[in-house]
Amino acid sequence: MPRHLTTAAAVAIALAGGTGIAGAQDGPFEMQIAARQGIMAYRALQLGTLGAMAKGEVDYDAAAAQKAADNLMASVTLDASMLWPQGSDNEANPKSKALPAIWADGSDIGAKGKAMVDAATAMQAAAGTGLDGLKTAMGEVGGACSGCHKAFRVAK
Amino acid sequence: MPRHLTTAAAVAIALAGGTGIAGAQDGPFEMQIAARQGIMAYRALQLGTLGAMAKGEVDYDAAAAQKAADNLMASVTLDASMLWPQGSDNEANPKSKALPAIWADGSDIGAKGKAMVDAATAMQAAAGTGLDGLKTAMGEVGGACSGCHKAFRVAK
Repeated sequence: MPRHLTTAAAVAIALAGGTGIAGAQDGPFEMQIAARQGIMAYRALQLGTLGAMAKGEVDYDAAAAQKAADNLMASVTLDASMLWPQGSDNEANPKSKALPAIWADGSDIGAKGKAMVDAATAMQAAAGTGLDGLKTAMGEVGGACSGCHKAFRVAK
Repeated sequence: MPRHLTTAAAVAIALAGGTGIAGAQDGPFEMQIAARQGIMAYRALQLGTLGAMAKGEVDYDAAAAQKAADNLMASVTLDASMLWPQGSDNEANPKSKALPAIWADGSDIGAKGKAMVDAATAMQAAAGTGLDGLKTAMGEVGGACSGCHKAFRVAK
């Protein structure tokens, strides 16, 4: 079945070192950690756009604010269920800053995640309507970010 | 306006070292590169699920295949316009494997990106319908991945 051989070859080419991440196979959960941190960086870029307007560093631009808020929402609703396997923490691989507490009994990681989705939803509704609304929503988003980071990220 | 001070403080907390990426500010375009590579890793994880079925390493599971294809589609349609600023290439920062040719006159990077979206669209339509359809779509996806990597990624 030559088509399947061709398919397998194409897949192999695509996946062999597919990410371009240096040392992507150096430790456990490298792909998951890279994806998690990359999505965090993506969110930080959107928040950089929104935050610069909130702080008055750049003029408020409704279209740019809405786009950044839409992007933030898309990134927080992207299915991340496969990115957080049990044990993929800072102790397993120090490239991650994720504390084992995320997976511990009684962890409220689900509530922390929901707070982020709720805050991003509020930002998406507010960002294009005016600077005051953006500022208020930015407080909620910042609170959701820092709430999870304080509880579940390795302290500096 | 205490609310705005609170907002600014929350934003500062959220963004200060916000990504958890070690050395995220070590070179130019660090955030964009981390986001790009993280999204590539996310795609590779979805293709790992689909590829294992295509290669017969795991049994075909329509629901799992559809979920992975939906995730692939979400990741290729995520707005990446802010992740590829002019000059954010391997010469500017060796953490990136992106060749300057991406931004050169006559670059067909747009066509390469469209090929990926088209292939992911075909995969999303096929993945849940049966193994043969998944295999065929996997060939298209693999071709789109490797087409862009061959043209625009630093050779190993």
